[in-house]
Amino acid sequence: MRIGLDAMGGDFGPKEVVAGAVAAREYLSNGDVIVLVGREDVVREHLGENDGCDGIEVYHAEQAIGMGESPVDALRTKPKSSIAVMTALHRHGELDACISAGNTGACVAAAQMGLRRLKGVHRPGISVLAPTFAGPLAICDCGANVNCRPINLYQYGVMTSVYMKAVCGIETPRVGLLSVGEEETKGNSLVKKSSELLRADPRVNFIGHVEGNDLLRDVMDVMICEGFVGNVVLKLVEGLGFGLIKGLHKQLAEAIPDQMPRVDEALGALARKYDFNQYGGAPLLGVDGIWFICHGASTHCGIQSAVREAIQFAHRGVNQQITEQLTGR
Amino acid sequence: MRIGLDAMGGDFGPKEVVAGAVAAREYLSNGDVIVLVGREDVVREHLGENDGCDGIEVYHAEQAIGMGESPVDALRTKPKSSIAVMTALHRHGELDACISAGNTGACVAAAQMGLRRLKGVHRPGISVLAPTFAGPLAICDCGANVNCRPINLYQYGVMTSVYMKAVCGIETPRVGLLSVGEEETKGNSLVKKSSELLRADPRVNFIGHVEGNDLLRDVMDVMICEGFVGNVVLKLVEGLGFGLIKGLHKQLAEAIPDQMPRVDEALGALARKYDFNQYGGAPLLGVDGIWFICHGASTHCGIQSAVREAIQFAHRGVNQQITEQLTGR
Repeated sequence: MRIGLDAMGGDFGPKEVVAGAVAAREYLSNGDVIVLVGREDVVREHLGENDGCDGIEVYHAEQAIGMGESPVDALRTKPKSSIAVMTALHRHGELDACISAGNTGACVAAAQMGLRRLKGVHRPGISVLAPTFAGPLAICDCGANVNCRPINLYQYGVMTSVYMKAVCGIETPRVGLLSVGEEETKGNSLVKKSSELLRADPRVNFIGHVEGNDLLRDVMDVMICEGFVGNVVLKLVEGLGFGLIKGLHKQLAEAIPDQMPRVDEALGALARKYDFNQYGGAPLLGVDGIWFICHGASTHCGIQSAVREAIQFAHRGVNQQITEQLTGR
Repeated sequence: MRIGLDAMGGDFGPKEVVAGAVAAREYLSNGDVIVLVGREDVVREHLGENDGCDGIEVYHAEQAIGMGESPVDALRTKPKSSIAVMTALHRHGELDACISAGNTGACVAAAQMGLRRLKGVHRPGISVLAPTFAGPLAICDCGANVNCRPINLYQYGVMTSVYMKAVCGIETPRVGLLSVGEEETKGNSLVKKSSELLRADPRVNFIGHVEGNDLLRDVMDVMICEGFVGNVVLKLVEGLGFGLIKGLHKQLAEAIPDQMPRVDEALGALARKYDFNQYGGAPLLGVDGIWFICHGASTHCGIQSAVREAIQFAHRGVNQQITEQLTGR
């Protein structure tokens, strides 16, 4: 298996990505290779003594897309960017997977334009594993598709169930549809129509409508919503979690200054439970290929996790299973 | 001023509402009256020794709408419910304001069906003051309107700015539009079109697009979004805040059990910052009347705050100012 890794992507630049690639070699089987795509001189400099080691190759791409650039414009004006070059390699069969912590919109656009969709899939969706007190919760879609139709939400339910079963080992993942009340009568027309489709498929373990506060209760394994809402929820959960832990730290530092080493230890344990780096990347489900999008602020640990997940995704045949479910074959 | 208060609404029933009414008498001027609407025998029982005191009246309503009932069905089948009766009194000029901690959907539907809209207003929106580290943030709409058009979002910006200035004393409230990225190119078509309308009105202090994590940063005083998203955000913020504080408590109880009295004090201070009861009710902006919706779990403190806010809303002429802004008169 040849795994492409965008060396130029992410808030911390090539340093963390290259370190993540080196660390991820432990997951490689015989013949597997991580291909770092980016400015060759920069990548080799960061590889240092690891340059030339087993399992790591470098593929030159002259340009890089910045985090703030308009995705579609950037892809048009930067055909030699690491994201575009890596996606083209995947399309031509020279890579089996792509991973990037770069501009999410550009990753989604490159994957959607560069790769076909899996048979039966209407629109791909980003499925993010979010840490909660009760374990990981997969939220789909987190921003690939902001003009969503009922068939899309239904298919997110099918695809993310397959993914959660294959990757997290949950036999029949509980699927909730995000709405403004548990009652079927509440919600907008998109939710009501999607609900009917989800309910009609006995292969989906659909538990019905859920609300914003249900994210913290152990009621579901998969939460389905349209990309706009999913993106807002994801950023809010992350921001609020860290904001509250910070606020509490300040409060305790004033109240019990002498206890701060032990408080820091306890808060650190909680912060680690909420650390997205443990889950690495989020797959763009529904494209005919493997495309993992990492958090912009991924450390080398996050990149390392994403490589492990991309390998699992391939070995456990997630895409084949999605196609089987959606085409009935 | 005659302020109607739904005695039957809320998770804690008449007890907390009646206690809130008694406590709120301190805000009444000469001649002001709080009218408790509900089952007369029940209300008088809870009034006890306060029955007959200055500033409190009781108006009998035979029925009550439950928290889980379908709003439209409930209003149709329960014309003598406290919510329906109170709204009718307001429509006929026998009340100047309505307050309820009952079924939110029923309150919105009763207000929308029972009262006219203010001149120039297309759709009313619920404007909730949410506590953040940086002070109160008004979020509009939190669920009155789940099929939103650009003109609605624009008007929410205008109406909530008027409200924040009049009630919180913020001279030129900063208005953010919730989207999936700060860049103008990101977001769905509703956001893009609403953005143009907001930007075109120099009376709105529009700061542009904001993201989920901006709720915790001191970047805006008003956040505009469609009702579905606003409702999800509100419930998530509340659930996550209390969930995290609970999680932290558990973690610290294991780490520093001997310090728990002081930890509890610090956590309590943080929880109080997040207590919705300090803000009481949320106005349904845009109806030709005053309709405040309280959190279902409001204590007597929340009810008391809502009465104070309804009086302020009337005295500071929020509705007149909204009409002036939206009709140019």
